[in-house]
Amino acid sequence: MTEQSQRERGYGEPHYGLTRTLQGRAFSDAVPAVRAALAAEGFGVLTEIDVRATMKKKLDVDYPNYLILGACNPPLAHQALTAERAIGLLLPCNVVVHAGDAQDTSVVAVLDPVAQLGITGRDDIRPIAEQVRALMRGVLDEVERRAAPATSNH
Amino acid sequence: MTEQSQRERGYGEPHYGLTRTLQGRAFSDAVPAVRAALAAEGFGVLTEIDVRATMKKKLDVDYPNYLILGACNPPLAHQALTAERAIGLLLPCNVVVHAGDAQDTSVVAVLDPVAQLGITGRDDIRPIAEQVRALMRGVLDEVERRAAPATSNH
Repeated sequence: MTEQSQRERGYGEPHYGLTRTLQGRAFSDAVPAVRAALAAEGFGVLTEIDVRATMKKKLDVDYPNYLILGACNPPLAHQALTAERAIGLLLPCNVVVHAGDAQDTSVVAVLDPVAQLGITGRDDIRPIAEQVRALMRGVLDEVERRAAPATSNH
Repeated sequence: MTEQSQRERGYGEPHYGLTRTLQGRAFSDAVPAVRAALAAEGFGVLTEIDVRATMKKKLDVDYPNYLILGACNPPLAHQALTAERAIGLLLPCNVVVHAGDAQDTSVVAVLDPVAQLGITGRDDIRPIAEQVRALMRGVLDEVERRAAPATSNH
C-alpha cells in the first residue's frame, strides 16, 4: 500500500494527533506503559472506553483492540474551565491505544490539545493548550522509554 | 452584564456547542432529563465526569455542579472508525450539563459534531457528523420537552 492510499484508507497519522508507533510491543503491553506514563506526567485517567467490547456488546461486531483513555491534568483543566465554562465540551484529552499494522507493534496517539482547544478560537486558551501539548509529548516520550524492548539502545 | 462582556467572560454560547437553557429546571432536574433523552434518541452514555467532584478531590477547589457525559451512537461511531481509525481521538460526543446563571435554570450543551469531526478535514466524514448533529438536535428537543415545567404550553 502506498503512503497516499494508506492515508486515504485512514491508516496514516492524523494531523490532529500526536502519534507514536511502538515496535516490539503488542497492544496488551502498550496499555500499562501508557497508563504509567500518564500518571508520571500528572494526568489522571477520568474516562475509559474499550471500543472492542463496546462494538461487540452494542452491534455484535468484531472490532480489534482499541482503547480510548480520557486524560486530565486537573490544574490546567481548571484554568481552561475558568476561562471558558463551555470548554468541558472539549475535555478530557483523549489518548488512543490500538494494535499497529505490523505484528507486535502498537500505536499510541494523543489528541493534539492545540488542535482540539483551537476550536474555541480563543487566543487566551492557546497557551493552556500548548502546556498540555508539551506535557503530552513528555507522556509519549515516557511511553517509548517504558515500552522499549529491553535489548534496545534507544 | 452586557452580552459582549458575558462572551468575554466565557459565559456566552460557544459556536462549537449546541446549547439550550432550561427554564425552571435546576441542575438536579436537568440531568435525568438529559439521560432519558439521549437513550430515547439512540445514544449510549459511555463516559461520565463529575467535574465538581473531580475538582474537589484533585485540587480541593469548590466548583459548581458540572457534568460531562460522553455519548455514543454505536452504528455511526463504527462508520466513523471504519473510515478513519484515528477518529477515536475525537469520540465520544460530549454533552455538558451545568447550572444556569439565573436561579432554577440549567444549561445543556452538546459538542457540535460537525465542528469536532471537522478537525479531520475529511469531506467523507462530514455526512456522518451531520447525522450525529441532527440526532443531537433531536436530543435537545427531547430534553426541553422532558424538562418543561408542567404548566408550560411549550
